[in-house]
This record gives sequence, C-alpha cells and structure tokens, in this order.
Amino acid sequence: MKNSSAGIVGLGYWGPNVLRNLIDVDSFKDIYCYDVKQSQLEKNKKRYLSINPVKKYNDILSNDNINCVFICTPPQTHYKLARDALLHGKNVLIEKPMTVNVEEAEELIKISKKRSLKLMVGHTFEYSPAVEKIKEVIEKGILGDIYFISMTRINLGIHRKDVSVIWDLATHDLSILFRLINEMPHRISAVSNSFIKKGLKDVAFINLKYRSGTIVNINVSWLSPKKIRETIIVGSKKMLIYDDTKSDEKIKIFDKGVDVLKDPASFGEYQLTYRTGDIMSPVLEATEPLNIEISHFIDCVNDNLEPKTDGYCGLRVVKAVEAAERSSERDGEVIIVND
Amino acid sequence: MKNSSAGIVGLGYWGPNVLRNLIDVDSFKDIYCYDVKQSQLEKNKKRYLSINPVKKYNDILSNDNINCVFICTPPQTHYKLARDALLHGKNVLIEKPMTVNVEEAEELIKISKKRSLKLMVGHTFEYSPAVEKIKEVIEKGILGDIYFISMTRINLGIHRKDVSVIWDLATHDLSILFRLINEMPHRISAVSNSFIKKGLKDVAFINLKYRSGTIVNINVSWLSPKKIRETIIVGSKKMLIYDDTKSDEKIKIFDKGVDVLKDPASFGEYQLTYRTGDIMSPVLEATEPLNIEISHFIDCVNDNLEPKTDGYCGLRVVKAVEAAERSSERDGEVIIVND
Amino acid sequence: MKNSSAGIVGLGYWGPNVLRNLIDVDSFKDIYCYDVKQSQLEKNKKRYLSINPVKKYNDILSNDNINCVFICTPPQTHYKLARDALLHGKNVLIEKPMTVNVEEAEELIKISKKRSLKLMVGHTFEYSPAVEKIKEVIEKGILGDIYFISMTRINLGIHRKDVSVIWDLATHDLSILFRLINEMPHRISAVSNSFIKKGLKDVAFINLKYRSGTIVNINVSWLSPKKIRETIIVGSKKMLIYDDTKSDEKIKIFDKGVDVLKDPASFGEYQLTYRTGDIMSPVLEATEPLNIEISHFIDCVNDNLEPKTDGYCGLRVVKAVEAAERSSERDGEVIIVND
Amino acid sequence: MKNSSAGIVGLGYWGPNVLRNLIDVDSFKDIYCYDVKQSQLEKNKKRYLSINPVKKYNDILSNDNINCVFICTPPQTHYKLARDALLHGKNVLIEKPMTVNVEEAEELIKISKKRSLKLMVGHTFEYSPAVEKIKEVIEKGILGDIYFISMTRINLGIHRKDVSVIWDLATHDLSILFRLINEMPHRISAVSNSFIKKGLKDVAFINLKYRSGTIVNINVSWLSPKKIRETIIVGSKKMLIYDDTKSDEKIKIFDKGVDVLKDPASFGEYQLTYRTGDIMSPVLEATEPLNIEISHFIDCVNDNLEPKTDGYCGLRVVKAVEAAERSSERDGEVIIVND
Repeated sequence: MKNSSAGIVGLGYWGPNVLRNLIDVDSFKDIYCYDVKQSQLEKNKKRYLSINPVKKYNDILSNDNINCVFICTPPQTHYKLARDALLHGKNVLIEKPMTVNVEEAEELIKISKKRSLKLMVGHTFEYSPAVEKIKEVIEKGILGDIYFISMTRINLGIHRKDVSVIWDLATHDLSILFRLINEMPHRISAVSNSFIKKGLKDVAFINLKYRSGTIVNINVSWLSPKKIRETIIVGSKKMLIYDDTKSDEKIKIFDKGVDVLKDPASFGEYQLTYRTGDIMSPVLEATEPLNIEISHFIDCVNDNLEPKTDGYCGLRVVKAVEAAERSSERDGEVIIVND
Repeated sequence: MKNSSAGIVGLGYWGPNVLRNLIDVDSFKDIYCYDVKQSQLEKNKKRYLSINPVKKYNDILSNDNINCVFICTPPQTHYKLARDALLHGKNVLIEKPMTVNVEEAEELIKISKKRSLKLMVGHTFEYSPAVEKIKEVIEKGILGDIYFISMTRINLGIHRKDVSVIWDLATHDLSILFRLINEMPHRISAVSNSFIKKGLKDVAFINLKYRSGTIVNINVSWLSPKKIRETIIVGSKKMLIYDDTKSDEKIKIFDKGVDVLKDPASFGEYQLTYRTGDIMSPVLEATEPLNIEISHFIDCVNDNLEPKTDGYCGLRVVKAVEAAERSSERDGEVIIVND
Repeated sequence: MKNSSAGIVGLGYWGPNVLRNLIDVDSFKDIYCYDVKQSQLEKNKKRYLSINPVKKYNDILSNDNINCVFICTPPQTHYKLARDALLHGKNVLIEKPMTVNVEEAEELIKISKKRSLKLMVGHTFEYSPAVEKIKEVIEKGILGDIYFISMTRINLGIHRKDVSVIWDLATHDLSILFRLINEMPHRISAVSNSFIKKGLKDVAFINLKYRSGTIVNINVSWLSPKKIRETIIVGSKKMLIYDDTKSDEKIKIFDKGVDVLKDPASFGEYQLTYRTGDIMSPVLEATEPLNIEISHFIDCVNDNLEPKTDGYCGLRVVKAVEAAERSSERDGEVIIVND
Repeated sequence: MKNSSAGIVGLGYWGPNVLRNLIDVDSFKDIYCYDVKQSQLEKNKKRYLSINPVKKYNDILSNDNINCVFICTPPQTHYKLARDALLHGKNVLIEKPMTVNVEEAEELIKISKKRSLKLMVGHTFEYSPAVEKIKEVIEKGILGDIYFISMTRINLGIHRKDVSVIWDLATHDLSILFRLINEMPHRISAVSNSFIKKGLKDVAFINLKYRSGTIVNINVSWLSPKKIRETIIVGSKKMLIYDDTKSDEKIKIFDKGVDVLKDPASFGEYQLTYRTGDIMSPVLEATEPLNIEISHFIDCVNDNLEPKTDGYCGLRVVKAVEAAERSSERDGEVIIVND
C-alpha cells in the first residue's frame, strides 16, 4: 500500500493520536493533513517532519494518490466531510460518533456501499484487548446468559463545547455493549441535565432493556470527583468486572452463582444458596487499541474486507444515542428502538 | 421509663438485633417477645435469659404494662400488626419499609395522630454518624447546590423471598436521600427484572428527577459479584463520596469545581477550567446506628417528641418505592409523584 | 469426650473467644473458668450461663474430671500455669507466645513428653484457611523456590502493657513463616524502638536469612495510621500476595516470572524478559480458625495425635523472637540461630 | 543564557527525558549530544531535529560555548565524565547515583569547589511536589517528632545489568529521606540477595537508625508482583502516608495519635488511648519534577546559587548505599556511618 497516500482532517484533540499511529504503522507513501486552524497544522508539522500540511480540504479530495481519509473533526462535521471523501472515491475512517443523527449515518452507508468503498467508525474500545477478551469469554458461554450490565464512565475532565456527555462518553459504552451483545436494545430511557452550560448535558443516567430481558444501566458524567471506568456484567453462570482504570487486573471473572433449591422442610418453598468460587484475572496484551484499529482499517482496504466496526456499527450507536437524547429531553420517557 | 415494658414481634433476621439493643439500652422493666415460629423464640430465650416469650401477639397487645411495640416482621404484616398495636394504645416502631403500600402508611399515620401515639419507622441509616455528617455538610452549604446523586447498593447476598430488591435495598437509599434532600422527587422511573425467581425483582436501575433539576440514580441488586455501598454527591461547590464498606474514610469531601470563564481569544466562547483542591475525610463516631435509633424512640415516647423518622418519613419512602415498582412493571414508564 | 471437663485460665482479651468456641464445639461435660479478676468471671458468667467460675487456679488443677486446660493469660504467666497443669496430668493448650524464653518452652516440652500429655500452642493463624491454602500452593511447587518473603503487620491499635510488639505481633508472622518454610532461619537481626512507653518496643523491622538464601523481612508496629496485614511471597515460578484485611481475594497468585536470555546481539550479555500472566484468587472456606484450632486440640487428646502446632512449633517462634529482641537491644547486631 | 550551549552525554533510558526537558525549558543556544552508541544519537536526532550530535565526548569538552554538561550515562562512568567536564570548566548535572563510591564523590566536590563550578545531582524526587509538600509538613511541626519511616519501592520491572537494586532503587528513597531528615543515620544494615543474576542484588531490606532514635526501613526489589511506592511516616503528633502510585491522594495526613493516661483504677498503671481524627489529602501541583530540576540547575548556574541537590547531597546518598552494600555483603552486619 506504500503506493498510495493518506489524508487526515482535524488535528485537534484526537487527530494527533491518529496521526502518530499512522506514521507508526508506516503503510502510506505520504500523509496529507488538513485543519481549519493553521496553528494546529504548524504545531504538528514541527513534531512530525514527514507530514504534508495542505491549505484546504479539497487538496486532499482532489489528490488521486490518496485512497484513505481519516476524519477526526468535531462530530457535527463528520457527515459532510465523509460524504465528500466517499464521493471522491476515498475509503473513510470516521471518529466516533459516526454522525450526529441517524439519517446522516444511513446516507454514508448507502454511498459507501454503492461505490464499494470502506466506511469504518473509530470505536477504539472495540479494538482493546480487554473488550476482545470479554467478548471471547461471553461467546464461550463462560458467563452463561447475560442478566444485566452496569456501566459507569464518570470523571472530572474536559467539558466538550460541541456535544453532550451522552454523545461524548456514552458512545464508548454503547459501542462496547453492542460488541458484547450483538443486538439492539428494545427500549431506551435517560434522565440527564446540564448543570454547567445551558443546553449541554453533563450528566446522564441511561437505562436500556433488551427483548431478551437483559437490562443495562449506563452512568456518564463530566462532573464526578472520582474517575470510574467500570463495567459489571452479571450472567447466569459467572460474573465479570472490567475496570479500565487499572493497569493490572483490568478484568476479573467471578465464579459465583445462585442456585434455586427446594427447601424440603418448608413444603415446596424455594431457598437460594450462593456458591462463591475462585476469581480469575486473565492477562491482556499491552498493544495500543488505536494502533490495532488503524492497522485493521488498512487491512480492510487492502484485502477488501468488511471492517469490524463498519458503518452499521456506527449507525446503531448513533441510533441509541439519539434515543437517549430524545428520552432525556422528554424527561425520561421510554423510546422504543427499531432494529 | 423502667415502669413500663416493651413488646417485640418478629425474631427472624433483624429482630434479634433490635432485641440486643433493647436489652443494651436497659430502659424497660420487661421485654416481651413474640414470633410465629416457636423455634425463634426458644433460640433467643437461650441467648437472652431475661426476655419473656409469649404465645400469641395478643399477649403483648393486652398487656397494659407494655407501652412500646417493636415490629420486626416481614413487610406485608407491618400494617396489621402496627394498626393493632396503635389501637391498643401502644407507641410503635416499625422496621423499614413501613408498609407495602401508601394507603396502609397513611392509615397508620392517621390512627397514631388521633391517639397521640408515637409512630416511628426504623430507617436505621438515618441515624448513622455518616449520614448525619453528610446532612450537616449539605446544610452548611459546603457542597453548594446539589446537582446530582448516584447511589449504588449491590452485592451477592440474601435473596429475600417476600419482597423485591427495591423494597429490600432501595428503601435504604431513598430514606438517606430524603434525609439529605428534604423534598419529594417529581418524576420516578425504573427498569428492573427478576432473574432468579419469577416475580421477584432482583436488580433495578431507578432514576429520580426533582423539580429543582437535581437528578438521582439508584442502582440496586442482589446478584453482583462485588459489594458496593457508594453514594456520590456532586454539588456546585464541592463533591462528596460516601463509601459505607470502608471502616476508615467512609466520607471524602472533594474540593473540586468547575468554573465557566469567558475565553477572550475566541470572542465570547466559554471555556471550562477545573479547580482541584484538597480532599478531606472527617472522623466519624463509632456508635451503632440501631442503638441511637432505639434510644431516640424511647426519648420521643418519654419526652413527647416527634420522632426524626416519623410516619411521614416512612410514607414518602413507601410512595417512592411504589412509584418505582409501578414504573418497572410498565417497563420504565415515568411515574409522576405528588407531594 | 463428654465424660471429662475443661478448665480455662484467663478471661481478659482473648480468653472469651476461646470460651465461646469451647461452648460452641460442645465436647466437654463442664467448663471451669478462672481469672485473677473476679469481675471478668462475673461478666462472662452473665453471658455464658453454663460455665463454672472457680475461686482459685488450684480448683482446676485438683479437679480430676478436668483433662484439658486452656491458658489465655499474659505471656509471663504461661510457663508457671502450664507447668502446674502438666504436673497435675492435664493436657494443655497455651496461647501464643508459648513462653517468654527458650528455657521455659524447652522445660514444658520435656514435662509433657515425660508424662505423655498433649502440649499445644495457640498459633491460630496456622489454622486459618488462607495459611493452609498458601502452604498447599508452596508444597505443590506452584511458586517454585522461595526467593523472599515480606511481611507487614501494622496498625493503630491496642498498646500492650506487658510485652513488646515483637512478642505481640511478630509471633503471628513467625508462626506463619515457619508453617510455610519448615526450617529455622540462620541469621536474625532487628531494629526497633519504644516511642510511647519506655522499654516497650512499639515498632520493629526484623530481617531473617535462611541457609538456603531465602530472605525475609517482618515489619510490625502498633503506631501505624493504616492497618496492613500483608505477606508477599516471591518464588522462582510464581508470586503470591496474602492480604488478610480483605474479605474477598485474600490470596492472589501471580503468574509472572523472569527469564534470563542470551542476547545474541551483545556477544554473551544476558537480557531479562518478564513474563506476565493470569492472576488467580482461590476461594477460601469461611470457618473461624480458632474453632478449627480448638477442635484439633480435642481430637489430638482423644485420638492421641501430635498437635499440628505442638511445643516444638511454639519453641521455635520463642527462639526467633528471643533472637530478634536480643538483636534489637544490640542495635541491630546479627544473631546466629541454632536449629 | 541563550548565549551559551549545553552538552548531554548518554541517551539511553533516562537521557532522552533530560533532553526533552532541556528542549522544553529553551534556555540554551544549542544542545550537543553524545552517546557511545551511534544508533541512540540517530534515533534522538530523528525525533528532535534541533539537536547537534557529536562524534566524541571531547567535542563537548572542547566546545567553549558549552557551559553546562548533563551526564546521563551508567553510574560507573559518572566520575570520569564529570571530572573531565569540571576540569574543562563546565557546570555539571549528574544523574543519580552521583558516583559508585565515596572517594569519587568527594573528589568531584573538591574539584567543583576549587573551580567554582556548579555540581548538582539529579535526585529528581527531591523536586517532586509531593516530597516538597511532605518536607513542608514536617518543617511546620505538623507531624511532631519523627518516630519511624517505612519505605517500600518494589515492582516487577527492568532488571538493571550494571548496578544492584540498592544503587538503582534505594537511592531514590535515601535521597527523599535525607531531604526530609537533614541528618545522616548512624547505623545501617541490610539483608539482600541476588536471585536472577549472580552478583546482582535484586531484593534488599535495609534498616537505618538515627542518633535521635528515629528508625527507618527501606524495602526494595525488582521481583515483586505488585508495584508499591509507599512511604509511611509516623510522628509524635500525626502520621503521613505518601503513595506515589496514585494520581489523586498521593499524600494523606492522619490526625491520629496515642496518649498515655494514668489509669486511676489500677494504682498508677498507665493506659493508652488512641485518638483518631480527620484525614486530609492536600492538593499537589502537577509539574514534572525533572522540568523543575533542570530549571533549577540553570538558575543556579546563571545566578550563582548553590543547587538544592548539590554534591554533598549526592555524596551522602552514595555513602549510605555503600554502607548498605557492605552490610549486605557481610550478611547484615551493622555498619557505623560517620557524618
């Protein structure tokens, strides 16, 4: 693939990470960069000598040598930039969230299909060794049926100016959730509020219910005094805790369960006994998820494969966020989600 | 008060704790005990020689020397037993939840008022030094306006046979919440399910919204691999974490906040800066909350005072649980709560 | 064994726990109790109706129906009380430390052997499921060769009046250590000091070295702001951490190791690579160690077996403490220990 | 100072960090770099375009425009490189440990004094906001008299090829200790062993005793399954725990203490009561210590000030390590240290 080049749009917060990994995987002839702020381009040019800053996005679109475009701009701009790139015949990797509404996401999928171009969404967590391991544990049936999942992603951090905490943080949990349970929840409700800046939700409690009965709670906030990144998964056989703030023991699998026994003394009354067992914390690879993600995108382009986090993955996260946003604007009303 | 005696009904799980503290405070001439299971009476008589087991509840009701009755039976029986006691002129302390529906709770309040008898609910956490300290911190304005509260009470423990996890565990959080914010939430919704025994909810995610905009999330379950007893309170000035599983540092107050600044370079755009500051963990007394609670009840009876956790406190918890139960049966529909 | 009775001396801090378990195992016809303080006897009689307080120790010694004596008095009195009991033909269980010097311990062993009586020391930790599990893990060779052990037992707690923190706390670690490595260390040194009460060491750092090369550090104090009960065992194959303050995950086994590789590029220089692997936390039984200990003593008496923590176990702990005390009085001088 | 230039020797593990900060503080006209391995120079040149690699150390020594030399090579080479630099009239910052024996350290101090050149040692921890804060807390008398200090620095990490774990890790603790207690300990003993590579100690337990009675334990290892960076300081008034692995709450100050009371009931016997109080965790600045250190060195050179971590600071750490090494080679024999 050293025959073709890459274009990257947006070198603000996340873009430089993508750029660093693009340089690192070393699969492109040249890397062209664009940002609306000239200062961002200069700053990155200083650090990474080999890159080629361009004056306008069109310089990337019109460059026939560029076959891959990486979009790392604010969410509102994703659709327009990605659409233009697809229409110029580029394969596209868009940062999460894919778009800010369902229509845009569907449109991008349609165009990419028509043109046989790769459209991938940067759901980085889906490439992390921890989430991969949890997926494997669930698929092997180790946890049994999934009863419920509780996800917490709170901290005192960057207050985004452009999108709510649901679009910013809950998208991570939703993409992880949909990787683990390959199905859309049926009902979504959310309660949230904007305490710091009017109209910009900075805390949200989201409830999801699946047709299977599985229920999920997602708790996100930018205002918490303590950084928590915890997912608790309770299954019929075992339980799992995934704590992403830990360097060791990110995942713990608990051999505990509940049995329903007949209590002979009480003429048919049931009695619950709780088995507790060993706790196991599997070792995880230390590879950077973003590196895996970018390599995977390049592989998909080169070998004509469907990306793991393709447009449909992006779409269902957008769909769920849209439902959660709508619910929270209606003060918690349940939104029915169509598959 | 050594002139009168006490009666206690129900010596199953919680009753013996009440009994032990009753003996300990040593304010009654005699303690009469009743339980439907003869074996429970015998077991306790063995341990506490001084108690007087009786054959039927009526032996307590008809004993004119008894002026206080402690009801520690399953929730469904609370109303009938408390009503009978009040009608026989006894002051009554009922274990939480006060009753299993609003009508029963209102009826008990009415009777107690009419007869000028004390009616108290055993919301033990409201007597704990930790909750008292948090109340004090909030009242002094140290946290500022309360933005949101996140409460988690999960573990792998006793699966109740009679009431759901909402009636069993969330009542604790609701009673704490109503102590801290002396007001009813306006909207309540809940998603829950019964995984182990049909019809008996064993996990629930409850969202509450106040008219003031404050939002609250309560997460309860009997099926979690990890015991968590955590309340995170985020205010406009400071934040607080209350971790009841800790022996030290149960409460931490975080001097962190968020400021909204004008960014002069960006012509009116706002910019958020985060102040972080010292963390303080106040020392707490080691007194057993149940002991404080029982002493308080006796003081109220002797000095004709209104109990801190009176019938109205019990009622509003029942009202909130009823709403949460109704919402979860309607798959998360928002229930509007009247004050 | 319900044919014979038990005597217990000393109902201060630890004695009541022994008494409670003695009542619980229910293997004796009667239990006779003695304490120099009449008040202690009365307090316990109130709680445990069935016990028989006696006026003087001789009432126990001269009672032919008593075949087992449990000594729970301050360490300085152990020798005299145990000697008298043995000379009156009683089997004896002495609380740790067995005696306050080597001569006394050796003398008690001699008498017990001569008279074919059981002499056991209450090294309770050696009966705990956690220590038993660690012993099993080491014996199966799971850790490989033991490189070093680091033991910390510090807290802000009861300041003993009679013995130093080495006699009080380090005896626990030494008894655990000698259970795990069935061999005496060759060299012992200790640095300590008495900060609160002159002559009463309240902090000590003890170093032990085995002939095999294994080294051990024991850190004990009554003055630490944080309660730590941690043992880190590093072996050639795996590592283990035992944290006795935890209710879950008391033991963790770390599949990590170090390999020595030849580095071909550097002409014979070695290079170390570190394998990291899964972490496993085995489930442990919840039985109270003291209950297991007392049952074991009774079994030994009934079935004429040698106790697991016999006089020799007690002796070697006393020997090690004596060496540590001597070293710390000589400001850290190394003491050579004879087997 | 932009009139003169800097030289840096050694771009292996630590050197690039020094280089990055040197570029960052931007106080030198040019930065000249030397490393025995050409590949290290090339790698860094790629990353930092502005630097000037040189062919031999002498190119730095003979460059009259260079007035500061930063030595980041293996410890054994420090003396020779620093001596040459001083003799060529350069101010010198040497990485820790300053030298590998006392004579070398003393010689460097002598030369620097004679030539009025700055000689500073890179004890980076002494520039960390955490250690600065602890120093301040102690100097204000908040902890009272220092009773004892327990320092643990263990992990499973890089196994150095050239120096023992004492030279590698304990130097950090010793430099922190000597910053906190401005005095040499009187007696040092150490027990250690080399489990992975013969002759290269990979675990050590070091005991130090001060003339004042203060005792210190330092526990270092490259073989531990868990990363611990903990210093516990117990004073007569308060206690402090410094946990360097934490991002929040690195320092906690415990308002706990011990009182000696007369027990009236026991005719002059003392009784200890423990006060527990609030716990405070002061906020710390987030500045990188190495940046502060390098800026400080430049200030000292420019304003002719004595560096905070001057040659004498370096010397006393070398002296203490030498004593610990000697003790551990004599199997724990106590070494008397002269001031």
